Amino acid sequence: MSRPRAHLVVTGSELVRGERTDLNGPFLARQALALGFEPARISIVGDRPDELAAALAEGVRADLCLVSGGLGPTHDDRTLELLCRAAGVELMHDPELEARIEGISRGYAERTGRPYAVYAPGVRKQALVPAGGFAVGLAGTAPGILLPLPGDRAAIALPGPPNELKALWPKAIAHPAFAPLLRRAEVPGRRVLRFYGVGESLVASTFADAGGDGDGVEVTICARDFEIHVDLVVEPGEQARARADRIEQALLAAHSEQLFSRDERPIEELVLELCRARGLTLGAAESCTGGLVGGRLTSVPGSSDVFLGGIVAYANTVKAAVLGVPAETLAAHGAVSAETAAAMAQGARRVLGVDVAVSVTGVAGPGGGSDDRPVGLVHFNAVGPGGALAQSWVVPTDRETIRRRAGATALHLVLQLLSGV
Amino acid sequence: MSRPRAHLVVTGSELVRGERTDLNGPFLARQALALGFEPARISIVGDRPDELAAALAEGVRADLCLVSGGLGPTHDDRTLELLCRAAGVELMHDPELEARIEGISRGYAERTGRPYAVYAPGVRKQALVPAGGFAVGLAGTAPGILLPLPGDRAAIALPGPPNELKALWPKAIAHPAFAPLLRRAEVPGRRVLRFYGVGESLVASTFADAGGDGDGVEVTICARDFEIHVDLVVEPGEQARARADRIEQALLAAHSEQLFSRDERPIEELVLELCRARGLTLGAAESCTGGLVGGRLTSVPGSSDVFLGGIVAYANTVKAAVLGVPAETLAAHGAVSAETAAAMAQGARRVLGVDVAVSVTGVAGPGGGSDDRPVGLVHFNAVGPGGALAQSWVVPTDRETIRRRAGATALHLVLQLLSGV
Repeated sequence: MSRPRAHLVVTGSELVRGERTDLNGPFLARQALALGFEPARISIVGDRPDELAAALAEGVRADLCLVSGGLGPTHDDRTLELLCRAAGVELMHDPELEARIEGISRGYAERTGRPYAVYAPGVRKQALVPAGGFAVGLAGTAPGILLPLPGDRAAIALPGPPNELKALWPKAIAHPAFAPLLRRAEVPGRRVLRFYGVGESLVASTFADAGGDGDGVEVTICARDFEIHVDLVVEPGEQARARADRIEQALLAAHSEQLFSRDERPIEELVLELCRARGLTLGAAESCTGGLVGGRLTSVPGSSDVFLGGIVAYANTVKAAVLGVPAETLAAHGAVSAETAAAMAQGARRVLGVDVAVSVTGVAGPGGGSDDRPVGLVHFNAVGPGGALAQSWVVPTDRETIRRRAGATALHLVLQLLSGV
Repeated sequence: MSRPRAHLVVTGSELVRGERTDLNGPFLARQALALGFEPARISIVGDRPDELAAALAEGVRADLCLVSGGLGPTHDDRTLELLCRAAGVELMHDPELEARIEGISRGYAERTGRPYAVYAPGVRKQALVPAGGFAVGLAGTAPGILLPLPGDRAAIALPGPPNELKALWPKAIAHPAFAPLLRRAEVPGRRVLRFYGVGESLVASTFADAGGDGDGVEVTICARDFEIHVDLVVEPGEQARARADRIEQALLAAHSEQLFSRDERPIEELVLELCRARGLTLGAAESCTGGLVGGRLTSVPGSSDVFLGGIVAYANTVKAAVLGVPAETLAAHGAVSAETAAAMAQGARRVLGVDVAVSVTGVAGPGGGSDDRPVGLVHFNAVGPGGALAQSWVVPTDRETIRRRAGATALHLVLQLLSGV
């Protein structure tokens, strides 16, 4: 692969200790990838100078070094000092930048009624720019810094608060001094195949039979709640494109019935869109998932025109009283049964007044399993104007996984019902 | 601080490209910290052998190298091969481990009706263990690996799926071969304070007034969905303990009314426990959260004796037909109003036959806001045998944040109702 390499350095003690999840690394990685860089590493370090210095020393060896955090006004914000040391340049005072930051800080001082002297040392610190580098803009009083490096390479340092980082990123990459590096990157092609109901090993063996990775095509195969996500990253050029075509065709030929999408939208979005296209409303009856199916569907903005609501029927009393599951069905077959799942879906359709309803009932564990109904047994039913579709599986894992997979299966069952598979 | 240094290496192309957010690094960092290690760096790399090799070469220089991912059966799962190269040991075939993995894979083959030959190459690959290392257990067919290193150091490699990693982690650190490194770490004391309904800056200023960090006490203050999580990490020794006592007392004195917990159990667990102790059943009526409140409550094993169910009343038709919200309430005050929230909670209590019900209705956005009812406005109501409690807030952020915070608020409202606050 000939993509210029990007190394991301994220600093924050709460991040390296796992007390907060880093969002800047993933954001910058997606941005770099879209520009044609290969995000090769994300290094998360705390504010200990030796750890940050080591990470930056490695970072500046990449074609593009992206740094998040450590640009604040206090003494433990050392990113620029250590970046300069890693790049072998001086940190210089920028009087024009200081004037701008001072203006903002005097505004703060006025609003808070504190003397400007409180802010002055921080202002001087934040007005330091690496020699040969540029302040590309300000977020609050923190500048975004672009530092061109020898060999058409560059480092960009941005403030840690995600909204400030996102605000300054476009200014950094639009700066004229970034253009030489940008010209080295070619935006790669990307192809996406999403399968459901086929094993990861089987997809991997189809892929291996088609020749595997190489020649400008990188493939990742990733299992996620019974979905198999196949991503092809394709270098520019005829040869790579032809190879990607062959791999894609081999996968489609072998697993055409399991293909459910060729883009990255999650299943809840596909379900909502298919319902919308058919003019159908949707509802859910959930037992072991406890609301996760509704939660996923309503995570999509604008879902309210399709998804009208759901019944979380966790207790049998609710299955009977709200969904109208007959007492004899519960008595004869139990709450976790194909019969109860069917009655739940029909009940939800009626009670919620929806065109299509899907139900889930299962044993999520860790307790509550039996020989007849082990932990990991889940029954599903989807019912619509054209008929119904039932499914069940037993995959004993942990409670969280069983519930998450059950939610995914319920959504795929609706897709299958409406696709007439 | 003299804590042994931990370096975490997380592998996954989808992680380094920002297509998925890494959860294993933060989990392992928190675990390492709790054992007395200092999480010094998290390196996230893809499955390119050169990048993974470089990260592992650095990783094995730390006292503890924790590796996540790349243990699967496919060609691009190269963690053990490269870990062995970094540590200078051979990768050996383990016939006993192969027999165990084969047993599991034959079970898969039977259930899926596929020939075992499809699985055989993956089984052979997953039965490789570094010389001098140990398979500490299996998650599915993926082993967790412990590799002791010279100088009472160690590397631990675990599968990438978070639930598998979490399942194997306790087995790795309980292995006798990990004991020498564990003895080098001194488990720090840990104190936890959880506040709700007070600002992060106010807690931070109380903490600063009490003397701040130092003298063997490290404090992190972290805001999470309106909760303020304060964690004290306390080095062994009398001096640090006394200092931690002073900080703890200052925080308790200033914010006693906002304290809701002194341990790490999530709010859903506290709510279920309080209901259980009072012999009360619980239900929910959700609009903008779409099932997330039920989803959180049912994430807790054994929740079924307290939580009977919920109504996801996303559409007004469902609010009226299922929850019995009067048409005139909806017409006069709108779906997002204190009046509708109250009627939803009362309806849920009646329809679900529960002692306590909580409701949520709001504008999660990004569309659907108005001057009267802006994006980020959410109304809540909790009703129980002793009365009702209403709440509302307007905090315009993004859809996901609004929904997550609304779910947390609903749970805290139940806690407040039952605590008589």
